[in-house]
Amino acid sequence: MSGVPGTRMHALMSELFPICRSITGDGVRHSLGLIGQRIPLDLYEVPTGTRVLDWTVPDEWNVRDAYIRRDGRRIVDFTSSNLHLVGYSEPVAATMSLAELRPRLHVHSERPDWIPYRTSYYTRSWGFCLAQEQLESLEDGEYEVLVDSTLEPGSLTYGECVLPGEQRQEVLLTTHVCHPSLANDNLSGMALLTELGATLAEVPRRFTYRLLFIPGTIGSITWLARNEGELEKIVAGLVVACAGDSAGLFYKRSRRGDTPIDRAAQYVLSRRDGAHVSDFVPWGWDERQFNSPGFDLPVGCLSRSREEEYPEYHSSADDLGLVRPEQLEDALSTLLEILDVLEADQRYVNLSPKGEPQLGKRGLYSSTGGGAAQDEQLALLWVLNQADGEVSLLDVAERSGLDFETVREAAARLREAGLLEEATES
Amino acid sequence: MSGVPGTRMHALMSELFPICRSITGDGVRHSLGLIGQRIPLDLYEVPTGTRVLDWTVPDEWNVRDAYIRRDGRRIVDFTSSNLHLVGYSEPVAATMSLAELRPRLHVHSERPDWIPYRTSYYTRSWGFCLAQEQLESLEDGEYEVLVDSTLEPGSLTYGECVLPGEQRQEVLLTTHVCHPSLANDNLSGMALLTELGATLAEVPRRFTYRLLFIPGTIGSITWLARNEGELEKIVAGLVVACAGDSAGLFYKRSRRGDTPIDRAAQYVLSRRDGAHVSDFVPWGWDERQFNSPGFDLPVGCLSRSREEEYPEYHSSADDLGLVRPEQLEDALSTLLEILDVLEADQRYVNLSPKGEPQLGKRGLYSSTGGGAAQDEQLALLWVLNQADGEVSLLDVAERSGLDFETVREAAARLREAGLLEEATES
Amino acid sequence: MSGVPGTRMHALMSELFPICRSITGDGVRHSLGLIGQRIPLDLYEVPTGTRVLDWTVPDEWNVRDAYIRRDGRRIVDFTSSNLHLVGYSEPVAATMSLAELRPRLHVHSERPDWIPYRTSYYTRSWGFCLAQEQLESLEDGEYEVLVDSTLEPGSLTYGECVLPGEQRQEVLLTTHVCHPSLANDNLSGMALLTELGATLAEVPRRFTYRLLFIPGTIGSITWLARNEGELEKIVAGLVVACAGDSAGLFYKRSRRGDTPIDRAAQYVLSRRDGAHVSDFVPWGWDERQFNSPGFDLPVGCLSRSREEEYPEYHSSADDLGLVRPEQLEDALSTLLEILDVLEADQRYVNLSPKGEPQLGKRGLYSSTGGGAAQDEQLALLWVLNQADGEVSLLDVAERSGLDFETVREAAARLREAGLLEEATES
Repeated sequence: MSGVPGTRMHALMSELFPICRSITGDGVRHSLGLIGQRIPLDLYEVPTGTRVLDWTVPDEWNVRDAYIRRDGRRIVDFTSSNLHLVGYSEPVAATMSLAELRPRLHVHSERPDWIPYRTSYYTRSWGFCLAQEQLESLEDGEYEVLVDSTLEPGSLTYGECVLPGEQRQEVLLTTHVCHPSLANDNLSGMALLTELGATLAEVPRRFTYRLLFIPGTIGSITWLARNEGELEKIVAGLVVACAGDSAGLFYKRSRRGDTPIDRAAQYVLSRRDGAHVSDFVPWGWDERQFNSPGFDLPVGCLSRSREEEYPEYHSSADDLGLVRPEQLEDALSTLLEILDVLEADQRYVNLSPKGEPQLGKRGLYSSTGGGAAQDEQLALLWVLNQADGEVSLLDVAERSGLDFETVREAAARLREAGLLEEATES
Repeated sequence: MSGVPGTRMHALMSELFPICRSITGDGVRHSLGLIGQRIPLDLYEVPTGTRVLDWTVPDEWNVRDAYIRRDGRRIVDFTSSNLHLVGYSEPVAATMSLAELRPRLHVHSERPDWIPYRTSYYTRSWGFCLAQEQLESLEDGEYEVLVDSTLEPGSLTYGECVLPGEQRQEVLLTTHVCHPSLANDNLSGMALLTELGATLAEVPRRFTYRLLFIPGTIGSITWLARNEGELEKIVAGLVVACAGDSAGLFYKRSRRGDTPIDRAAQYVLSRRDGAHVSDFVPWGWDERQFNSPGFDLPVGCLSRSREEEYPEYHSSADDLGLVRPEQLEDALSTLLEILDVLEADQRYVNLSPKGEPQLGKRGLYSSTGGGAAQDEQLALLWVLNQADGEVSLLDVAERSGLDFETVREAAARLREAGLLEEATES
Repeated sequence: MSGVPGTRMHALMSELFPICRSITGDGVRHSLGLIGQRIPLDLYEVPTGTRVLDWTVPDEWNVRDAYIRRDGRRIVDFTSSNLHLVGYSEPVAATMSLAELRPRLHVHSERPDWIPYRTSYYTRSWGFCLAQEQLESLEDGEYEVLVDSTLEPGSLTYGECVLPGEQRQEVLLTTHVCHPSLANDNLSGMALLTELGATLAEVPRRFTYRLLFIPGTIGSITWLARNEGELEKIVAGLVVACAGDSAGLFYKRSRRGDTPIDRAAQYVLSRRDGAHVSDFVPWGWDERQFNSPGFDLPVGCLSRSREEEYPEYHSSADDLGLVRPEQLEDALSTLLEILDVLEADQRYVNLSPKGEPQLGKRGLYSSTGGGAAQDEQLALLWVLNQADGEVSLLDVAERSGLDFETVREAAARLREAGLLEEATES
């Protein structure tokens, strides 16, 4: 049933939606627990104060309640939407005039009916977000304000799902888990990576796959700091986010721009209507950390809309209705196809490199001359001609203009015939 | 007399046309004998069963007679056209019904009045080719079939014409000689290479030229196997075939794509109307063997129509009328011009590289300032400026936009003036 | 006052205009003396007969008087325009018929009312230049001819202004000083380089600047011969000439084509309307000597019209009216901007290369998330991401599409924050 994975991902998003997540706290633990019911997930807790690269793991933030009351009535209520509270708001309990309160209130700059999403992680502060319409309806007078939060030493939580492959070389797949009730950014990414993990767990894998569910920025920095000695294993990576809106698929290249994952994603997306590819820029999601010059990892980013590129971005309008199951499913199948190309994009050595080997006696050539050459036949010749140990199958596909699938099948037939073997790494 | 070489080539083709050639046999020997009357040609015989790279020299094939008779009358007759017999047909003498005979009969897929050309070299079989019109006119009944051929241990025959030059470095020129009564493919190539050999024999040569007249595929494989230790001498090469039809000239690059012969052919063809150049593909004629990854020789291919690209290809319509003397002659002059550029495209060292040498005192510069610079003057400056031992004259022509001829003459004048010398090979 | 530098440069040109300059002689000394009143200029005298590379310093040429008289009246008079006398004319005093005199008279090929400019440096000769209109008006009869010149051992004179910088690496700026009363070619270049020297003398300099005022060809050859051991200090250079006519600015690349000065000039001119950039060609002014293969210095050329490209070139119409102060001033500001980019186009190393450094705690990042990224913020991220010691700030500007100024300011802020340091030369 083709609709099942899309429906399943959307259902997981619905389950995750109400939870108040941030870069630390119980919301992340709770969310990772739900994901851990679907794929084998190891949770890591990194204590507040731990030095991670240039950063320090911050205090852990948790919220019991938060509101603005007027005449005993909650007019802005964290329990109705966690977006109402500025992320990482410090505790406060006070009564103040609207004039005093006003600087603490944030509205959406363009849409009067949407609640914006705001945070203040590294500068202690507190505040509320609300629709501009509501702000304008507030009358002068006294307001009762409560932020019943804790901002104390604790830990930063992240999850890791490792799927061992034939090789110790790893493909890194990451998504950020630090947003509260925002659907596309980034419950879609969390659901997509979960479903991908469940799918990959069931298939043979050349590479080892490491799936990270991490808070944005501080999460990737923490993970990089703790795994610095292991990074040489990473041969490719993808940051996945914003995968369910109506936009076409978008691939952002790694800093180096022409690594195997860049080539594979470029190949697959060039065959999808409405998809596009662009060069690396040093902002966005966690790819900016993986692509910092001291690491320079071959990590690209797959999404639909980029951050700030869709109107509902970081607002209450980024809700479950914005994300469509068929878009999630299309993203999943694209992702699987990219990984499939990546796994198959190997370099081979022609074992009979002097002249063409006699294909006819191996059943690889039609025995009567003069017919039209078919793609399958041409692919055999291309692979034999190019297989000098330096050229990969994607290189062959690009030089020949043949489909990667056709080229890969030709390589498989030639291996079976004993004419080709994998190149050893140089 | 400008028409003489074209007429002479066409006359040789006419002489060769009736002979039944294949990848082995007396037809090839007979043909090479006629060529050997025009240029110094060494014939080589390689015994059946000899291992050549991944291949084995096959049995030698000769035909005395072949026909299909009905009521004592020859209705399909090898002696009227050798295309009637599938190449390498094994002996048979039988009487059979039309239904039994039918699977052995081949017709042209598109033209009912043409006899197709078919072979079955490496799978023992027999068969006849005829016009579809004739096939449709056959009535049920008994047919008498004879193939009076021999398919027995013998040898593979090829011819080699070596024209020594100042240097031991070699230019390899090859054409295939295995087709029976087909004019463009490839009597035109055989006639062109013969005339080229006669012309080159009369002129000074920097490079040594080696002209090969070889059966397709198995011939180049055999030659490569027997000359493997000598291949490092080859600095350039061209496979020549299908040179006389009405299409424009076509150059197919070597696998590496930018070797000196590729550069020279590109330069010459870019100045010819209707000529075109394309990248290497690993099929076609014997260039596929020379460009296999274990050899990777700098060998391109010059033709007019490529294989399968003209309707008459591999049919009885590829006859002497399809090939025009003026097209042969144009191919010859182009080929000579390519080789001329190749010979002249050397790298030089400026012997007065610091500042410009004073050209005036050497008679290389007009002594009164202020006039318009002429191409000849500019070429002197370009050659002096670029001659650092790495840049070739074609590089200079391309960077400057000047004609190669002008650049080469400038280099000659500068050599005479003692300002330039040939770079030694690095 | 924006008009001051332009007016000042034009005033210097007016002062220099009447002087009869050539490749040697008192005119050059006199001119360099006037320039030496404005900038610190060392004069060098190189004796006649000195071997300089492939050349020899010629005899020194000076002129006291020259004329053609008819009936005791000067009809062609050196004292009214020094263009009337062919440069380097040897002494003569004779009376001759118009027919005898005729081969010694030169006119402009296209404009009957203009006096052409002619020289004969390396072939002893003499001659006069005049308007074709005047030539046609001459009647048969006896003409009295006087060239009261000296052409004797003396010296070649050139001037050098050295402005030391923080580094011993040098930027070479040259202009030719050998033309008599011709304004654009090249009093404009002399005035521009003088004003540039005065300006650079007042500002901090990373590089050492060496400004050469030299006769064309033999001057640069002489300077190169005498300074061969010091050339490795030159990291960039510009030949400056023809800077004041109405054409747009023009940059001609160095032989190598992508050196830092080429990149800087390309960047600056791409932002100027009407400016253009072209590849190196081995003719023109002294750049041809600096770019000879034995030196191959990174020296480009900045001008407006190139030699021979404006109708007034090398004629009496190249006068002070052709050169406009605002064009000189625009050339000066462009030149300063190119040098400014060159000085700032350094390579840096990110001192916190693993992950992004935490910009917020250093006051380099807005503390509340969610706002639109500004160019200043993006530039910080680009510089940090690219600063691996290999990439220069112009590289960053080109890859990012940001203004060089924005990128350079980002680098300055990051240096202040201790996040960046200059790369050491490799």
